[in-house]
Amino acid sequence: MSPTPYVTFFHAPHSRSGGTRALFEELGVDYDMHVLNFKTGTQRDPEYLAINPMGKVPAIRHGEALITEQPAVMMYLADLYPEKGLAPSLTDPLRGPYLRWMVFYGSCFEPAVVDRSMKREPAAKSTSPYGGFEDVMALVRAQVDQGEWWLGDRFTAADVLWGTALNWTVGFGLVPETPAMRAYIDRVMARPAMARAAQKDKALAASQEG
Amino acid sequence: MSPTPYVTFFHAPHSRSGGTRALFEELGVDYDMHVLNFKTGTQRDPEYLAINPMGKVPAIRHGEALITEQPAVMMYLADLYPEKGLAPSLTDPLRGPYLRWMVFYGSCFEPAVVDRSMKREPAAKSTSPYGGFEDVMALVRAQVDQGEWWLGDRFTAADVLWGTALNWTVGFGLVPETPAMRAYIDRVMARPAMARAAQKDKALAASQEG
Repeated sequence: MSPTPYVTFFHAPHSRSGGTRALFEELGVDYDMHVLNFKTGTQRDPEYLAINPMGKVPAIRHGEALITEQPAVMMYLADLYPEKGLAPSLTDPLRGPYLRWMVFYGSCFEPAVVDRSMKREPAAKSTSPYGGFEDVMALVRAQVDQGEWWLGDRFTAADVLWGTALNWTVGFGLVPETPAMRAYIDRVMARPAMARAAQKDKALAASQEG
Repeated sequence: MSPTPYVTFFHAPHSRSGGTRALFEELGVDYDMHVLNFKTGTQRDPEYLAINPMGKVPAIRHGEALITEQPAVMMYLADLYPEKGLAPSLTDPLRGPYLRWMVFYGSCFEPAVVDRSMKREPAAKSTSPYGGFEDVMALVRAQVDQGEWWLGDRFTAADVLWGTALNWTVGFGLVPETPAMRAYIDRVMARPAMARAAQKDKALAASQEG
């Protein structure tokens, strides 16, 4: 079942919108996809800037609403299809941890990884939104160690976000791998929907070459 | 009406948890407050690190759930008391923009302000989660210009977050003030609950002096 109107998804292959594409596959719902080409810079075309002035993906449009920021897009979509069970409901005891980890991704993990990739020190503890790089990694490792999925026994949109993110940050050597982290990434990426999304995204990227 | 069990709120005066305290005032609900003293560093005591290993506030505990990250804490609380009307419901057309702006705060605004405060360049556009400082400010100004409250006609938890944040970042000269931004901040801070929270927080900070 898909909502009316369809959700329009603005996507570029091999970008921050890969997780959203994987979430659509996990949801198994229909949507309209608008593909941008980062190689030719179509995200800076006036047509797209009129939709998202940041020129970033993912973005989705649903009716009059524009939603940007990967964790927000994913939370919105997972809540839009409650029957798919990819978000704890508002009264589920896991709802709070779910919100925490979705927000933590953009507020702490990404800033920590960006600072590390640029070889620069984080801000002072009182200023830095994330404390230190090791603080963030310790929390990530604890979460990976605690169970099969990010929130324990149950696969949710948090796994789509974190599995995708750890896959590329470990792949680029930005996040130190542990055996449990490797196993977690493999577990997420081996899911049929996740593998299908990766395959489709690879083909899409290839179609933009040449 | 308050949920059972009460929410426990970990707070330090004049810190990132000020907005959460203001949200509790706006909600007008009961809660348990655990006060930390950043001057003596009680956020680094083992007792608190056992609760939140990051040693950061705000954090809330509700039953078994621990929730950190200011936008996540606020989204959780606003949804916990739907009858207070501080969060668009799951089926409200404003739900998507609400999620967008709550996440944007931690994913884009704070990193942009931290980089600016440290006088360092953002990462390259493709790496940076927020693009450039001016991109972020342009979006913030557009949002302030578009109506009475952050999402238009209706006061929500997004105003508690953004009103509080703009109040201190403009106050510290980190965000360039515009007339519309000044008027917005004043409008938010003039609300009885917001003013009451600021007053209580000032008294709490004073009680920790000497």
